[in-house]
Amino acid sequence: MTHRSAEVPESAEAPESAEAPESAEVPEDVTDWWATGISRIRPGEILLRGYPVEQLIGQVSFAETIWLLLRGELPTPAQGRLLEAALVAAVDHGPQAPSIAAARMAATCGLGLNNAVATGVNLLGDVHGGAGQQCMEVLAELEAAVAEGADLDDAAKNLVAEYRATGSRIPGFGHRFHPYDPRRTPLLDLVGAAVADGEAPGWALRAGTALERALAEGRSRPVPMNIDGATAIVYSELGFPPELGRGLFVLSRSVGILSHAWEEKSGGARIKGPLPRRLLPSYEGPAPRDLNRPESGGHSTGSA
Amino acid sequence: MTHRSAEVPESAEAPESAEAPESAEVPEDVTDWWATGISRIRPGEILLRGYPVEQLIGQVSFAETIWLLLRGELPTPAQGRLLEAALVAAVDHGPQAPSIAAARMAATCGLGLNNAVATGVNLLGDVHGGAGQQCMEVLAELEAAVAEGADLDDAAKNLVAEYRATGSRIPGFGHRFHPYDPRRTPLLDLVGAAVADGEAPGWALRAGTALERALAEGRSRPVPMNIDGATAIVYSELGFPPELGRGLFVLSRSVGILSHAWEEKSGGARIKGPLPRRLLPSYEGPAPRDLNRPESGGHSTGSA
Amino acid sequence: MTHRSAEVPESAEAPESAEAPESAEVPEDVTDWWATGISRIRPGEILLRGYPVEQLIGQVSFAETIWLLLRGELPTPAQGRLLEAALVAAVDHGPQAPSIAAARMAATCGLGLNNAVATGVNLLGDVHGGAGQQCMEVLAELEAAVAEGADLDDAAKNLVAEYRATGSRIPGFGHRFHPYDPRRTPLLDLVGAAVADGEAPGWALRAGTALERALAEGRSRPVPMNIDGATAIVYSELGFPPELGRGLFVLSRSVGILSHAWEEKSGGARIKGPLPRRLLPSYEGPAPRDLNRPESGGHSTGSA
Amino acid sequence: MTHRSAEVPESAEAPESAEAPESAEVPEDVTDWWATGISRIRPGEILLRGYPVEQLIGQVSFAETIWLLLRGELPTPAQGRLLEAALVAAVDHGPQAPSIAAARMAATCGLGLNNAVATGVNLLGDVHGGAGQQCMEVLAELEAAVAEGADLDDAAKNLVAEYRATGSRIPGFGHRFHPYDPRRTPLLDLVGAAVADGEAPGWALRAGTALERALAEGRSRPVPMNIDGATAIVYSELGFPPELGRGLFVLSRSVGILSHAWEEKSGGARIKGPLPRRLLPSYEGPAPRDLNRPESGGHSTGSA
Repeated sequence: MTHRSAEVPESAEAPESAEAPESAEVPEDVTDWWATGISRIRPGEILLRGYPVEQLIGQVSFAETIWLLLRGELPTPAQGRLLEAALVAAVDHGPQAPSIAAARMAATCGLGLNNAVATGVNLLGDVHGGAGQQCMEVLAELEAAVAEGADLDDAAKNLVAEYRATGSRIPGFGHRFHPYDPRRTPLLDLVGAAVADGEAPGWALRAGTALERALAEGRSRPVPMNIDGATAIVYSELGFPPELGRGLFVLSRSVGILSHAWEEKSGGARIKGPLPRRLLPSYEGPAPRDLNRPESGGHSTGSA
Repeated sequence: MTHRSAEVPESAEAPESAEAPESAEVPEDVTDWWATGISRIRPGEILLRGYPVEQLIGQVSFAETIWLLLRGELPTPAQGRLLEAALVAAVDHGPQAPSIAAARMAATCGLGLNNAVATGVNLLGDVHGGAGQQCMEVLAELEAAVAEGADLDDAAKNLVAEYRATGSRIPGFGHRFHPYDPRRTPLLDLVGAAVADGEAPGWALRAGTALERALAEGRSRPVPMNIDGATAIVYSELGFPPELGRGLFVLSRSVGILSHAWEEKSGGARIKGPLPRRLLPSYEGPAPRDLNRPESGGHSTGSA
Repeated sequence: MTHRSAEVPESAEAPESAEAPESAEVPEDVTDWWATGISRIRPGEILLRGYPVEQLIGQVSFAETIWLLLRGELPTPAQGRLLEAALVAAVDHGPQAPSIAAARMAATCGLGLNNAVATGVNLLGDVHGGAGQQCMEVLAELEAAVAEGADLDDAAKNLVAEYRATGSRIPGFGHRFHPYDPRRTPLLDLVGAAVADGEAPGWALRAGTALERALAEGRSRPVPMNIDGATAIVYSELGFPPELGRGLFVLSRSVGILSHAWEEKSGGARIKGPLPRRLLPSYEGPAPRDLNRPESGGHSTGSA
Repeated sequence: MTHRSAEVPESAEAPESAEAPESAEVPEDVTDWWATGISRIRPGEILLRGYPVEQLIGQVSFAETIWLLLRGELPTPAQGRLLEAALVAAVDHGPQAPSIAAARMAATCGLGLNNAVATGVNLLGDVHGGAGQQCMEVLAELEAAVAEGADLDDAAKNLVAEYRATGSRIPGFGHRFHPYDPRRTPLLDLVGAAVADGEAPGWALRAGTALERALAEGRSRPVPMNIDGATAIVYSELGFPPELGRGLFVLSRSVGILSHAWEEKSGGARIKGPLPRRLLPSYEGPAPRDLNRPESGGHSTGSA
């Protein structure tokens, strides 16, 4: 066998010199600074929200574990299946998504898959990953109006009118690429079934579909609900706060990001830019000039 | 309702001006530059490895979807459950893991949850996230030796001796923190059951446990298999290449990273450093000196 | 000499197969998609804002080059020196800054220095890196009021009163750690000298010091201008838009981030968490419970 | 003036509750865990390698400050100028570099400029940012051979022959895009002048040019030194270790990355993918298939 270098890493989780805790004083404000209720890690023990991890392995699904860590308790089986469906729905949207493209390029730069995935996930910002979260906020607003006595359809129409007056789009609706989003109906059907079974409250489904109807009124071109709207309904029905709608989208889309990074890495390209190498980015800058010849437009000391 | 700014983002996936494809020429080398076999996105259609996404929603689990995107086909139910168990096992290891701590700090810096998750995932490098991958490579090496006619236990002992001679650790074994890893046995039991059912080949389980036995020989202190070794066995049995062992660890650990980032963000701390604010990092640098007074150690022009 | 593997990378900038541009058609919308006015790269030629790079090397300082790339023209020597001073001022603030701590931890995880620097820079978000930018916006607001005829000191007092009424801090002023910021006066002195020489307009210096006076009125404890306020004045005087105030802070702080990552990497620690290994993060979660024994608080199916 | 929200961030560096250090015990192993020799931060004091920061502001250049923080002492003026020239030389290489393209795309995703810069810097990995570092290692190897008595030109020829035998490229030489690199000669001229003035030792310049000569022997097509080779010579002459060659390239390239991110952000594009929206990535995956109809290629349970 080949010779091993001393650089073979130990277990990823092995701290360097974790002797048994010393009898030195434990500064409580220091350990409290890193307090958490999510997990307790002691020698030989890993509790996740109080459950020994060995109880969860093989007993609880990955989606149920995601719920447990984020919410503190396990979901009902029906809740777990709804969460699962939403996570499956958003896993990928192809290389024209900047999060996917950036991860694919990263995979050609001599980085680990973790760096490529991190690159893609980092791009799921307010504009590229935030619509689900913002739609959940809109649904919550409609529900607040209903709780104060407003008629849902009226509230929806008012909200649509407000957005249109400011030239804004309602997050979760419309899609420049998809005339209809194939992920909408399967997700809404699952929510509807859960509501019918008493497994989901129903308010977000009602609010979301009311918005969809209000958007369709008097328009020739539909403004269909898209993946962000559909998952916003699911996550709202499941009781997640809007910001975690973004977090769950991140977990889902990480799957596509990893897959694309792996496919690119397996392809063997190196230092892959956005275009085939024969193409040169168009140039819109100054004509060539000389630092020492002002007549060329050069300024050895310039002013902005 | 509150006034909406025009900055409300549209759907995260909505390209700006995706009119129907023009009749302008399609430069094939350009579209081929971003070719993929993972997904096909067309107006109204999303195929994931050939399957319409709407078929997968509610029909296929999140773990099975991960397999589908990475491998190109769906797993058997037994394979899906094994993958699920391994993903569940590695979700968290608490705030003393730098990936978790960095993500928690990021969550206090006015960033989105995606940025916090990306921060943590970026740290799962060769040393903090690579042991599973390296263990898979070691298992494959043992299997190659067996395929060439070696006795497995002899091969395992030889490998152990080699590592010890160079002062290296075998990735996947030992743990400075855990005298035994509570995740080992549940995972190996599941693998064993799958092998017994003819759902897994068995070679990696045999190789991994042979290594464990070889490491235990003549030692007073055990060198138990840890999470990286156990998941390495699972992922090898499932036919994943070693580099995807790292990728799957990333998907798993992202769950803990997100949960910790969310917990920290909910706590409201701002600009959180590693220690309570009353503590100041020790200083090991030069005594205070004066740029203009060489006798203080200052050098207005220094030399390195 | 040692044997070279075929994995030695070629030049970081060498595209794989950059034959001379083919005679195939160039799709203009594609090359326009990546249009830029910053640089033109052609075989044997690199123009930076129109200047051949070989003219800049050795002729223009790094700070002047930063200005050239961001603004499109070279600065005057006085402008370049002011920019230089501000960049120097903000390079580091020690390991209790999360951007520094995260980069130091990253350096122990088997990553490259670029990944460690990226980790730290990623944390310079709205809360950890945004105060300079926000202060520039405030200065611009004061200037706009003056341009409309308001008295500067009155406008400053009104602004202070507004902030105090909402319990907000004015970005750029006060510092929980420093009773006075040693970087303030050197920077303001340099701005003052530039204004006196006719090299800077003076409006931001006047606005910033007016704010400082207004904040001091009737207070026993001073609210001194801090680094963000001082650099905000410099960058505003130099004509940079507020968002580039953030960008310049990033370039400056990258120096400290790199230095700390390098120091940590040189130290040889591995998988360094936030606390010495003998310390365990405090646990605030549920008592240990059993998935299968509800009386322990466990729920084999939970509800959130 | 507009109403301020309470969310206005305080100074980026203001810790939340930095009261004067308590009289509580200071756990030394905890403060030592974050020990540094780079800076000392105390209320009202910031020492950078022992120098009060206020002494450096306006007195020391940005390049000299970079040297001070990385090396611990200030450079000579000549050393500072050489470092400056190398930093200027590598600032940009246009949008076909994946680090630049990824940062430009990030700038369209609703992220801060710091996140866009971090995205680009993260891609400067072993393959996209490592050639300078690897070239420095090669130069050091040649110098070691010379120190052991070898003739430099013979050693260079042997090394070239070794690389060619394994089909590898010597890092720092050749460039698929540039037949000659316009940054090579200005940098080497500056090094030559410094050597002539006794300000640089000369060994790396001799080793690098010997390699260049050896590569040219018997070849019709030249293999010119590129930016990585030229900066490797500069940084080696200045006494930086190879890994810091990568770090300095990161600081330099961050300038171009920031500029491109800013240009893109100013352009107002949203969610910008790698290609104009009319183009769809080529699809290489399975034909559309049905989960429930095996004859279409679908497998409701697949096998990998």
